[in-house]
Amino acid sequence: MKIVKKIKDLRSHISGMEGNTGFVPTMGYLHDGHSDLIRTSIRDNDNTIVSIFVNPEQFCEGEDLDRYPMDMERDIDILNTLGVNVLFLPDKMEIYPSGYKTFVTVREMDEVLCGRSRPGHFTGVATIVLKLINIIEPHYVYFGKKDAQQLIILKQMISDLNISSEVKSVDIRRDLDGLALSSRNSYLSEKGRKSALVISESLKYAEYLINEKRITDAGIIKKNIADLILKIGDVEIDYIEIVSLRNLEDLDKINLNSTLIAIAAYIEGVRLIDNIIFGEI
Amino acid sequence: MKIVKKIKDLRSHISGMEGNTGFVPTMGYLHDGHSDLIRTSIRDNDNTIVSIFVNPEQFCEGEDLDRYPMDMERDIDILNTLGVNVLFLPDKMEIYPSGYKTFVTVREMDEVLCGRSRPGHFTGVATIVLKLINIIEPHYVYFGKKDAQQLIILKQMISDLNISSEVKSVDIRRDLDGLALSSRNSYLSEKGRKSALVISESLKYAEYLINEKRITDAGIIKKNIADLILKIGDVEIDYIEIVSLRNLEDLDKINLNSTLIAIAAYIEGVRLIDNIIFGEI
Repeated sequence: MKIVKKIKDLRSHISGMEGNTGFVPTMGYLHDGHSDLIRTSIRDNDNTIVSIFVNPEQFCEGEDLDRYPMDMERDIDILNTLGVNVLFLPDKMEIYPSGYKTFVTVREMDEVLCGRSRPGHFTGVATIVLKLINIIEPHYVYFGKKDAQQLIILKQMISDLNISSEVKSVDIRRDLDGLALSSRNSYLSEKGRKSALVISESLKYAEYLINEKRITDAGIIKKNIADLILKIGDVEIDYIEIVSLRNLEDLDKINLNSTLIAIAAYIEGVRLIDNIIFGEI
Repeated sequence: MKIVKKIKDLRSHISGMEGNTGFVPTMGYLHDGHSDLIRTSIRDNDNTIVSIFVNPEQFCEGEDLDRYPMDMERDIDILNTLGVNVLFLPDKMEIYPSGYKTFVTVREMDEVLCGRSRPGHFTGVATIVLKLINIIEPHYVYFGKKDAQQLIILKQMISDLNISSEVKSVDIRRDLDGLALSSRNSYLSEKGRKSALVISESLKYAEYLINEKRITDAGIIKKNIADLILKIGDVEIDYIEIVSLRNLEDLDKINLNSTLIAIAAYIEGVRLIDNIIFGEI
């Protein structure tokens, strides 16, 4: 695997590559969720480029930028083993040089769900992804469904801005106990981790209510999820939302072809998210 | 000249083109300033694509979107005569389809000079130019120096977002009497047009004070410009600013390698801009 730190060197390397290129942007501290994205890209493309860049612009005031987990040696081992062709590993000044001023916003969609408690987060995400796509010009770019709002916002951006790269999404990867994989799970104590299971369990219960009990009222579904979660004392709900996959607007009724049920909650001060999706993103 | 209205058709036409492509985005009602841009592109590239799209997103509340001058037959004649290869002539829904949400902002730079009296204008400009560049993927994109702030903002955007197209700028085209060409000049009465000459004359006087009288104090230059303009009763100054070419920040002293002296003024309700530039943009 070639490791490249400078945009100029990456472009020159890419110009010598033949065939399709898949791109997987990450913030490192890779887990099996990332590996699923990377394996999908390797399967579908002649070349796979992975970036690791902890993007300061997508962290808000008081968030965990300074303590975001990192283990570069392990990440490089994983990428080598998977068979990645190029790791792009820029430093902050390479991405945001002195005097940097340009930001992309996907309006409305960035104000709901996680956007409410993370102002500016999705502007940071959209901006870094646009920059990386412009640098790499991949045929396909891969995102996980765990960050469903991010995925929907980035698809909207790529369509709105007439970008020729195509977004591919990959299912949520869960541990055996059901917890959705996240680099931030490493912050949790064993007890916190156990409490966190209620999030995925409540989503499974919602799925049961919808698929088996034919409940379509979004309010009833949300109340059932909240009741389950609030039974566990140390989980603080940020939001439980039921929205359209198309535009992230609130739904009153479950639409089996276009619904996102998304949860964000704090456990031991750690913000975790999870979701289930009805329909295709 | 091929006239294309749909993005899909334009992309398919471009994919069959060979050699370098130059792109000149316009809002139509072409004058000799546009022709200079187009001739430069034709001279320097194998293919030249011109777009005509009156971009609603760059007009503010109360501006002249609904009465912006248009003469498509004449424009097409001009483009044919110049030897343009492709005219891209999209309608509004092709550029901003229903549910459109994504906008690009070049922060700080868009709040000064014209940004102050035209909130949102440069977000509209940056967004349409980014979209058109993504659709056309030109090697070079051409802008006039009359819209100096626009030119500097777009260069910043293209650099910040790692876009591989390169900006080329072309000098201001003036009528024999010195008035900078603008589609909006057509709004002026003969009397208004005469009053408007004070703008370019005051800039010439500023140039004389700087080059011949070696005056470097920006305050003195601004005062001399204002005194000249205010002698003409029916010209209302919006701003007279002296800023750095690099970041559009105010300058106290003229820097002969990086200074923009920019004026905006209203004559008969028509907003006109003009400038002189010391250094290279």
